[in-house]
Amino acid sequence: MRQFVVIGHDAPTTPDFSLDDLAGAAGRLDVLCRCVTSAFFLSHAIREAVRVQLVLADEYTVTFDGSELRRLNPDERSTAALVRNALEEREEAIGHVPVETSPGVSLTRRGFEATLDDVAGDGSVVQLHEDGEPVVDVEPPTDPVFVLSDHRDFEAGETDRIAAHADERLSLGPEPLHADHAITVAHNYLDTEGFERY
Amino acid sequence: MRQFVVIGHDAPTTPDFSLDDLAGAAGRLDVLCRCVTSAFFLSHAIREAVRVQLVLADEYTVTFDGSELRRLNPDERSTAALVRNALEEREEAIGHVPVETSPGVSLTRRGFEATLDDVAGDGSVVQLHEDGEPVVDVEPPTDPVFVLSDHRDFEAGETDRIAAHADERLSLGPEPLHADHAITVAHNYLDTEGFERY
Repeated sequence: MRQFVVIGHDAPTTPDFSLDDLAGAAGRLDVLCRCVTSAFFLSHAIREAVRVQLVLADEYTVTFDGSELRRLNPDERSTAALVRNALEEREEAIGHVPVETSPGVSLTRRGFEATLDDVAGDGSVVQLHEDGEPVVDVEPPTDPVFVLSDHRDFEAGETDRIAAHADERLSLGPEPLHADHAITVAHNYLDTEGFERY
Repeated sequence: MRQFVVIGHDAPTTPDFSLDDLAGAAGRLDVLCRCVTSAFFLSHAIREAVRVQLVLADEYTVTFDGSELRRLNPDERSTAALVRNALEEREEAIGHVPVETSPGVSLTRRGFEATLDDVAGDGSVVQLHEDGEPVVDVEPPTDPVFVLSDHRDFEAGETDRIAAHADERLSLGPEPLHADHAITVAHNYLDTEGFERY
């Protein structure tokens, strides 16, 4: 299983946003939507052994589970609609119990720390960092959990939390990438078993 | 210079489409918009030595030139608006003379064959193919011209045309990727000089 946790610092926590302005008033939800697309889509197929956690303003987490996903389309707007639907049921999310809001999509009332602490038990937490070890120099991890940030840098507390869990600090290349592009490169690294299997 | 030619088989050729339905009535313009984003965006920077040609239904080509680009944002909707603006000036595009429709964006009245014939002179045409040689086994090309297709496969005539120009047929990995994801992987391959420089 490959997991991706994406922090949406400015993401909405209520469904009162317009699908027409994802990059503006909706707090750069466009970035998070592209992360979902990068994580799941192959040509004409969904990657089933993938889970994505979108952390919305440290308050809610929307989970997409590849093995259960239905009605996911690759465009930003339709993915944002799934997030909005999830937020419409936020009152049902009590404690840390997730609410399934559409097939394969669920909402949990918890922020970054609780989400990371939870998924950290599932595999190796990987911190992507420009000064990290080149991915090509390490054995591709089994069950990796990649932690990424939206258009903003990680905050100090987030970095500390990731470092506390992280088994490895890896670099995907010399250029700083958008989170969704980093997901695509990480998949390619794992698909090719470290750029060896084509 | 890295170039990407993307064929939009069902893309609109008039500006009469809604930005609210890019994945539907606008002929999967969402795919082409994500290709533009993947081609140009780094975190907090634009790749200047990149050019993208979106071929719209074999009738018009919209060119994005990284060295001149202004007003490009990473979300699909705003990129689609640039394409729509370009199509609004389609009557001005006479012969094969491009019309600049916003800074770094121009429209030319020509289809795939004429566009490919033109850019083929700029560098090495690379055909991406699942049965191609693994990218990791070849020297990264200088001035590559990657040719990609939207959600549909290449048509027979297109494949023949590409093969006639292609210097290399390369595989990016064992999984079939969306065009925008292929662009991201191609950039990573080139940024790392064949997965060697991190």
